[in-house]
Amino acid sequence: MKIQDTMGIKYDQFSTNRRILMGPGPSEVHPRVLNAMATPLIGHLDPQFLDIMDDIKSMVQATFDTRNNMSFVVSGPATTGMETCLINLLEPGDEALICINGVFGERMADMVERCGGVLKSVEAPWGKPIDPEDVRTALRSCKPKVIAIVHGETSTGVLQPLEEIAGLAKSVDALFVVDAVTTHCGVDLRMDDWEIDAMYAGTQKCLSAPPGLSPISMSYRATQAIADRKTKVQSWFMDLSLVQNYWAGSRRAYHHTGPVSAMFALHEAYRMVLEEGLENRYERHERNHLILKEGLEEMGLEFLVEEKYRLPMLNAVKIPDGVDDRKVRKQLLQDYNIEIGGGMGVLDGKIWRIGLMGESSSINHIHMLLSALKKIL
Amino acid sequence: MKIQDTMGIKYDQFSTNRRILMGPGPSEVHPRVLNAMATPLIGHLDPQFLDIMDDIKSMVQATFDTRNNMSFVVSGPATTGMETCLINLLEPGDEALICINGVFGERMADMVERCGGVLKSVEAPWGKPIDPEDVRTALRSCKPKVIAIVHGETSTGVLQPLEEIAGLAKSVDALFVVDAVTTHCGVDLRMDDWEIDAMYAGTQKCLSAPPGLSPISMSYRATQAIADRKTKVQSWFMDLSLVQNYWAGSRRAYHHTGPVSAMFALHEAYRMVLEEGLENRYERHERNHLILKEGLEEMGLEFLVEEKYRLPMLNAVKIPDGVDDRKVRKQLLQDYNIEIGGGMGVLDGKIWRIGLMGESSSINHIHMLLSALKKIL
Repeated sequence: MKIQDTMGIKYDQFSTNRRILMGPGPSEVHPRVLNAMATPLIGHLDPQFLDIMDDIKSMVQATFDTRNNMSFVVSGPATTGMETCLINLLEPGDEALICINGVFGERMADMVERCGGVLKSVEAPWGKPIDPEDVRTALRSCKPKVIAIVHGETSTGVLQPLEEIAGLAKSVDALFVVDAVTTHCGVDLRMDDWEIDAMYAGTQKCLSAPPGLSPISMSYRATQAIADRKTKVQSWFMDLSLVQNYWAGSRRAYHHTGPVSAMFALHEAYRMVLEEGLENRYERHERNHLILKEGLEEMGLEFLVEEKYRLPMLNAVKIPDGVDDRKVRKQLLQDYNIEIGGGMGVLDGKIWRIGLMGESSSINHIHMLLSALKKIL
Repeated sequence: MKIQDTMGIKYDQFSTNRRILMGPGPSEVHPRVLNAMATPLIGHLDPQFLDIMDDIKSMVQATFDTRNNMSFVVSGPATTGMETCLINLLEPGDEALICINGVFGERMADMVERCGGVLKSVEAPWGKPIDPEDVRTALRSCKPKVIAIVHGETSTGVLQPLEEIAGLAKSVDALFVVDAVTTHCGVDLRMDDWEIDAMYAGTQKCLSAPPGLSPISMSYRATQAIADRKTKVQSWFMDLSLVQNYWAGSRRAYHHTGPVSAMFALHEAYRMVLEEGLENRYERHERNHLILKEGLEEMGLEFLVEEKYRLPMLNAVKIPDGVDDRKVRKQLLQDYNIEIGGGMGVLDGKIWRIGLMGESSSINHIHMLLSALKKIL
């Protein structure tokens, strides 16, 4: 809203309602994290900031459950983490086997083609996990440098078992790339034990930090593949051979201006995760998922995904026949300040996506949503 | 600093000194902007957030002095703004004429090669502006699709006159791309009047918002060039044909999760710029530059750049013979909490870069720095 005056254009201060965030992210952010973010800035090469970066690097290692030295944070949303992993590992002509059962698998496939990779794919219907047998079959007719898969498909609510496919990747000497955007800090995920070579996450889901950064990690094998490249990475911004000098080099060389305030927030959010303890946090996400499930089933609502493959932090629920998706979500937002997500792509209008992520994974959130939904439906 | 305990790893809360930021950015951020950033989050597709995005789009237009419809903010640091402009306008095989007289011209040249462009360049020594005659000469032996130049070379302190080179670009029907990272909101810059086709800025300089976002704008000619592409943009994240659907499409389609908190901060920072008025803000930057200049010259310090080409917001000062660059900057930081910048590349150890940007462009900042420098030198 702007008002012309003699000095130029004036805009009103923005105003927002206090929303209850139960969609696919961003989740709610604890006041401790908001306060940390509002700390007056220091320089992005200030020794005090480099100490904070060192902490964060070690927090990424702790929460990814990895000892990988190349563990840090990309200065962009989770999508830049995805793109960073793929374009650094692939050179033009390299084969990549992408597992596709939702929006984010499709996005990875698109990125492979854009960077000159040769796309091979294994698919499963949206709402079902990738079958390791299909990966085994696909590997008979290709020799991929990279096999990539989404751990928690945010578009469908599917939790993908990883270990068997990790073993298949290992057996053909492929690098195993995992999208942990939604599962990071919300469900068991062990980068080293499961032999994952490259992994990227988001901050705005179970970690409950604001969106805009992407923690990533690369195994020794992955860093070797990057060191052995014959061509430059197509993106200057995402070229890890440059970025790593800012995060890990002895001289901490300037690459880009680090997002100081967002990193302040991330530091405090990781602190809260580690204070709670990863196991406790996973258990909380699972427990609240089961409480929500019971409540939804009492109302006659059904899940899209078979029980054993459900993401605890993102509940994909079928919209009952005759119910108007957008009208219900609009009512939830307008009358109750509650945000839930709609379906994407082929699931648009067919499911709701109810997030119980990080700070938003609480019994009170469930009660607020179930009570409001009962009044509306 | 971490402490092992039974629940996992614990980290101390980070602690920072209250710094006086007088380097090449980030500049200081007003408490109003920090408070806005700490507003509890809302969803990145919430109608209230889309309103904020609409405001920001119009604020980018106002501060770029343009009516371009494709004016918005890239969700990454200014370097992603640079890369977004170049890779969307260039297709493999396209010629680009890059003007190089510092780090950021070099960076653009590197990006041109990475995206398959054919690099042509015009150079000037670091510390001097690009001579339009050299551009004219270069145009005799190439037919570039893009001519790109840095308005304020942060690595050297040079303010580049743009209008004559803009005219040359027009005369050969090339798209004129301008890096306004350091000059945005600090010195006169008129995108439409000067016929600039693509421009990107940073938030952490004269705009005094936290780093991590890049306002950009594309002229109608530039958007036509993007629409006429025969190949996909190499980056999924930076593909403007996708990004624009989130910012301007009638359905506001999901592309990536918008950096909600950073956008809250940006909205408030732009409000403060427009309250002050662009002309007043430019005049303040110029006035404070002259006061600093007088003080530095009284101390016998000399500028790197000839007077008429000096950036008011970034003062490149020669380090006197026998003075230890790093020792002085360390002392300023440790004893006075004042950050100034060192030189980059060939100017490492030879200059200091003193920023008077946005909130850091004030008489009190100048007094603090000059007094501290006098004690140290």
